[in-house]
Amino acid sequence: MSMFDKIAIIGLGLIGSSIAHAARRGGLAREIAGHDASPDVLDRAGKIGFCDSLHADVGDCVEDAQLVILCTPVGAYKVVAEQITQQLAKGAILSDVGSVKGAVIRDVSPFVPQDVHFIPAHPIAGTEFSGPEAGFASLFDGRWTILTPLPGGDKDAVAKLKAFWQGLGSQVDVMDSSHHDLVLAITSHLPHLIAYNIVGTAHDLEKVTEGEVIKYSASGFRDFTRIAASDPTMWRDIFLNNRDAVLEVLGRFNEDLAVLQRAVRNGDGQLLFDFFTRNRAVRKAIIEQGQDTAEPNFGRNKN
Amino acid sequence: MSMFDKIAIIGLGLIGSSIAHAARRGGLAREIAGHDASPDVLDRAGKIGFCDSLHADVGDCVEDAQLVILCTPVGAYKVVAEQITQQLAKGAILSDVGSVKGAVIRDVSPFVPQDVHFIPAHPIAGTEFSGPEAGFASLFDGRWTILTPLPGGDKDAVAKLKAFWQGLGSQVDVMDSSHHDLVLAITSHLPHLIAYNIVGTAHDLEKVTEGEVIKYSASGFRDFTRIAASDPTMWRDIFLNNRDAVLEVLGRFNEDLAVLQRAVRNGDGQLLFDFFTRNRAVRKAIIEQGQDTAEPNFGRNKN
Repeated sequence: MSMFDKIAIIGLGLIGSSIAHAARRGGLAREIAGHDASPDVLDRAGKIGFCDSLHADVGDCVEDAQLVILCTPVGAYKVVAEQITQQLAKGAILSDVGSVKGAVIRDVSPFVPQDVHFIPAHPIAGTEFSGPEAGFASLFDGRWTILTPLPGGDKDAVAKLKAFWQGLGSQVDVMDSSHHDLVLAITSHLPHLIAYNIVGTAHDLEKVTEGEVIKYSASGFRDFTRIAASDPTMWRDIFLNNRDAVLEVLGRFNEDLAVLQRAVRNGDGQLLFDFFTRNRAVRKAIIEQGQDTAEPNFGRNKN
Repeated sequence: MSMFDKIAIIGLGLIGSSIAHAARRGGLAREIAGHDASPDVLDRAGKIGFCDSLHADVGDCVEDAQLVILCTPVGAYKVVAEQITQQLAKGAILSDVGSVKGAVIRDVSPFVPQDVHFIPAHPIAGTEFSGPEAGFASLFDGRWTILTPLPGGDKDAVAKLKAFWQGLGSQVDVMDSSHHDLVLAITSHLPHLIAYNIVGTAHDLEKVTEGEVIKYSASGFRDFTRIAASDPTMWRDIFLNNRDAVLEVLGRFNEDLAVLQRAVRNGDGQLLFDFFTRNRAVRKAIIEQGQDTAEPNFGRNKN
């Protein structure tokens, strides 16, 4: 017996399509309904076949669904929430996958009916690829999903959403939205901003050609280009919607970088050595906890 | 017939041991002699067996060698060069693998006898692991090695060293040392400094625990921890010896970051979107030229 009779996935990109693949793998829903605002994406999703029904109209898609998951860029949530508010089924769970949570609560809450359980969520998983072809069933396996339920929300609904994400292969944590936004600012948003920035700096140097940057990228740069290849719309929306937390960690980053910059200028080898040494334990813990591979160069050298 | 009767590798860490493995694979030397200042490393190298002879005395190691390659951290070059200057064979090639080239020329040149060909070199390859156990024969396959011969140097010796690196599996470029140092400052030194810095910033945040940083690292952070796990001594020496170029690109990086920071503060979505979009071509070119894998997440999702 499936966990849900019908789930609705709004937005069929990397995350939406991966949820569909993983829900089917886990037998979590009798019907997986999908919607995308783009007719082209809808058409491509139909060819791949990870949904049982596809809907050009978002209202049709959510009708009778016991679980509705917003998987569009977060900048589109407000419009979508307004469009579906009349069609949401009584007792349904409304959730999402956005990388920011405070802004999502701000934008979506006003459109959530009294008898619908709104539980924001964020799976910490992804790749640098976008679109319905990018999804795959194992994307969430072993990763963490964070739920940020609102104060006073229904505990059974939270338990059910937690079981759903576990069924998709994920581990699940619960925290409040503002803590989520700060944690993700340092583990995800700042690294992406820095990666985009360093690729931009390399691009703009007059004395080093782009050909040279590409040829010698194995010395470190190439890893940043992977992160900087992520979807621009999604990332624009994240930075527009997590401004305070991003500016807070960016301020700390800049202070720390000023210290390293001065050490380079002054030739302070002891400070550099100590700084480079003390953080190696973090890498070790990430590997021990199954959040990354222990193989040199992420295993790339084996080809 | 081997390319060289005897080659000497000074320093048996990741790069030194990989050269030995690859030289043996390619049949490039009749004898591979090795030295390391650490008795422990020498002992471990003996157990692995990638050298034909091991020498506690660096002078013994280079005796009669037609090719001597310095593979210690660059901060040790000056001392080593002084130690071997009397034993270097007439007509030998003296080279290295250091990530900076101007400082290496400054430190080593004074000790190079008239009848020895000093040709600095830098293979753009590596992993985040260190030590004699970390080396493997295919490390240089398809990567680039940059030679920075001194003005007026012997062309035949350069051609011979080029053929040696090609025999190790590498592609070879030639440029002057100051251009090398600027190119590597942007493709390698700045990315490493930034990666070390961001791991440090995460470590120092009071409101986010290290456990959280580790659990949610798959959102971007984990890639930086791999780079920041590189050898601290090696990286201290790089920053001490490429100060001007690093400060130049770091200044540019800071200017660019200030623009992004202001865009985040002002909510300038168009600027962010354009910035995030325009550099995707670099990633594509890196993959097309075989300098990185095209697989999502470097292929890590497949396990």
